[in-house]
Amino acid sequence: MESVTSLLESIADVGRDGQRGGYSRPVFSTAELDLRGWFIEQAGRRGLDVETDRNGIIWAWWGEPQRGALVTGSHLDSVPGGGAFDGPLGVASALAAVDVLKERGVQPNRPLAVTVFPEEEGSRFGVACLGSRLLAGAIDPDKARNLRDEHGTSFADAARANGLDPAHFGRDDEALARIGDFIELHVEQGRGLGEDGPAIAVGSSILGHGRWRISVAGQGNHAGTTLMADRADPMVAAAQIILAVQQIAAKQPDARATVGRIQPVPGGTNVIASRVDLWLDARHPDDAVTAQLVETIHGKAQKIAAFEGCSVSLTEESYSGTVHFDPALQRQLENALPGAPVLATGAGHDAGVLAARVPSGMLFVKNPSGISHSPEEYVEPWDADAGAAALADVLEALL
Amino acid sequence: MESVTSLLESIADVGRDGQRGGYSRPVFSTAELDLRGWFIEQAGRRGLDVETDRNGIIWAWWGEPQRGALVTGSHLDSVPGGGAFDGPLGVASALAAVDVLKERGVQPNRPLAVTVFPEEEGSRFGVACLGSRLLAGAIDPDKARNLRDEHGTSFADAARANGLDPAHFGRDDEALARIGDFIELHVEQGRGLGEDGPAIAVGSSILGHGRWRISVAGQGNHAGTTLMADRADPMVAAAQIILAVQQIAAKQPDARATVGRIQPVPGGTNVIASRVDLWLDARHPDDAVTAQLVETIHGKAQKIAAFEGCSVSLTEESYSGTVHFDPALQRQLENALPGAPVLATGAGHDAGVLAARVPSGMLFVKNPSGISHSPEEYVEPWDADAGAAALADVLEALL
Repeated sequence: MESVTSLLESIADVGRDGQRGGYSRPVFSTAELDLRGWFIEQAGRRGLDVETDRNGIIWAWWGEPQRGALVTGSHLDSVPGGGAFDGPLGVASALAAVDVLKERGVQPNRPLAVTVFPEEEGSRFGVACLGSRLLAGAIDPDKARNLRDEHGTSFADAARANGLDPAHFGRDDEALARIGDFIELHVEQGRGLGEDGPAIAVGSSILGHGRWRISVAGQGNHAGTTLMADRADPMVAAAQIILAVQQIAAKQPDARATVGRIQPVPGGTNVIASRVDLWLDARHPDDAVTAQLVETIHGKAQKIAAFEGCSVSLTEESYSGTVHFDPALQRQLENALPGAPVLATGAGHDAGVLAARVPSGMLFVKNPSGISHSPEEYVEPWDADAGAAALADVLEALL
Repeated sequence: MESVTSLLESIADVGRDGQRGGYSRPVFSTAELDLRGWFIEQAGRRGLDVETDRNGIIWAWWGEPQRGALVTGSHLDSVPGGGAFDGPLGVASALAAVDVLKERGVQPNRPLAVTVFPEEEGSRFGVACLGSRLLAGAIDPDKARNLRDEHGTSFADAARANGLDPAHFGRDDEALARIGDFIELHVEQGRGLGEDGPAIAVGSSILGHGRWRISVAGQGNHAGTTLMADRADPMVAAAQIILAVQQIAAKQPDARATVGRIQPVPGGTNVIASRVDLWLDARHPDDAVTAQLVETIHGKAQKIAAFEGCSVSLTEESYSGTVHFDPALQRQLENALPGAPVLATGAGHDAGVLAARVPSGMLFVKNPSGISHSPEEYVEPWDADAGAAALADVLEALL
């Protein structure tokens, strides 16, 4: 088996972000396209047949494509300034697991496919798990086509420039029928396995999570000539909303709420903004609690905006309810990996989207610091190889 | 005389910003280069000889260039999403004033030059009045060469791509000696002339103003997997700093302090930022008070950051002390425009930078709403023509 670390080292120079640190590999960027090329080459070396489907998902087949296959994979795109493992670890581990299965002389009873999903992070077009959502029919294809990146390019145009026909986006029942079971291996993104704990956990559920855009409108003006008392500054309102988000979430056990992205318009240093857009990421195991949390934040934001002479609107950009993985499949994973702990995760994954249509499960590989979506994200090389071996065990048991 | 409104209408389609509204005409953008081309053509139509000096300032001469000339002009670049008048009004009024002087048959006793200064707003490279600062020796040419725009392009490279030699940037004593007096006409940017007041005012002083970058560093992490209690979120600290800026400035009579620009790194919706950069614009008539204000903000920011488990740094990007225009020249302007009120302004101008080297003065044209640096900035057509006529009166008196 080629080691997972050696596989990841072969892409270590792709998409480095000199400004933010770490990697920026947004979907259909040169970096992400290079990674797709790398995957296709690696699949070819292993004798897998590669196809890209109408939603931009790459499938690498061991055996003839057919209904009820076993499928494993993850994504290659990253958040801006992300780490080396979130996504690529699952893809590299799947390739390494194929090596292991072949070394073991496993003769599959059904075909195995390794998949790569586009725009898992939603870092370019704003909707996470966009590829798996299209496949599963979890997003209106029209909405997907019209998503725009920060430069105004639509997802349809970006996909077309990369050989896809956006007219064919959307739920793909034939492709779904080919997924008998779906397994995604992923770097753990919290401290669920501890610093000295076991290398691998079996996933149980994904916290409900969503994204909302909060737009605060005020009166744009000159920063030098407008007296403090004459202002309706949406930045001052936005700052209070950010603090309200933090305070409201801190009071709610198990809730997480974050503002990681903010954009003043026009954004000049010597200009009082006319509008500030900020994005809220909110999560809680109980969907009703998440809805209540966002409603509380919205109400508070309206009061803050009114007090500052501004107005505010809140728009849901995406929402995924809490997902419990298929219990029968989860038991099979636990049986194949005796002693592995069972973990819930606060992070969204393609496996969570697919779980609505096909039996899906996840494996997590230990992240000693728990840091993710950051250049500091880290997996020990031995844990990465243990992850690939565990994935091979699981696939062998299921094949 | 061609009306000022008709001159501005001929550039009304250049550099429109579909996203922000208004105009985005950063220095050396296609829009700003188109405007330079338009100016050169308009100057040619009026028989003026055009040259671009080594700092990128355009000079259009009526008469042979020589020491002690009368010079008037402004800028054509804009803030992001700015109005139609900030800059172009002064340039168009200067062209119209040349028409008036010629119609009146004025025979100048000294040459007259109309100038266009680059990067007055500092909206691309971060330092306002960059062209006049270079001319006046008010910025180290090395610092200017190394200023970078948001894409990492240096001012040196941008200038070189537009035919300038950055090695020749810097104080130009020969050009300064040619400026006997400098007059800048500009749209008023507050409500100093009221809604129903006179059309024109004479400038007396410019508020001291500066820009500081505040960098808040925390722990980048995953927005879904990191518990609220485990965070060191620089966005939460930045929000408190924005509120501190507003509160500290509101308590200080005559102070203005603004955060109009903020940039989280990496800036993903599902990512707790690792760093947030924000820019402070602060102004006060008394330079010592401005310094104290910024020091108070810095101290408060350090306390806020420490409480949130973050760190903070504050860097001065530019500072211009309060400028009082040349009293003798100001009296000449008042005498040429009997009854015009005298106004101080909170906005920075090239005339304020040049005032350190040559006698400089300003005229302001009424802005009924006081709104500026916004698409809503407005000047009535009759006030614009009254401004050009007033500028002609002033120039005639001084020629």
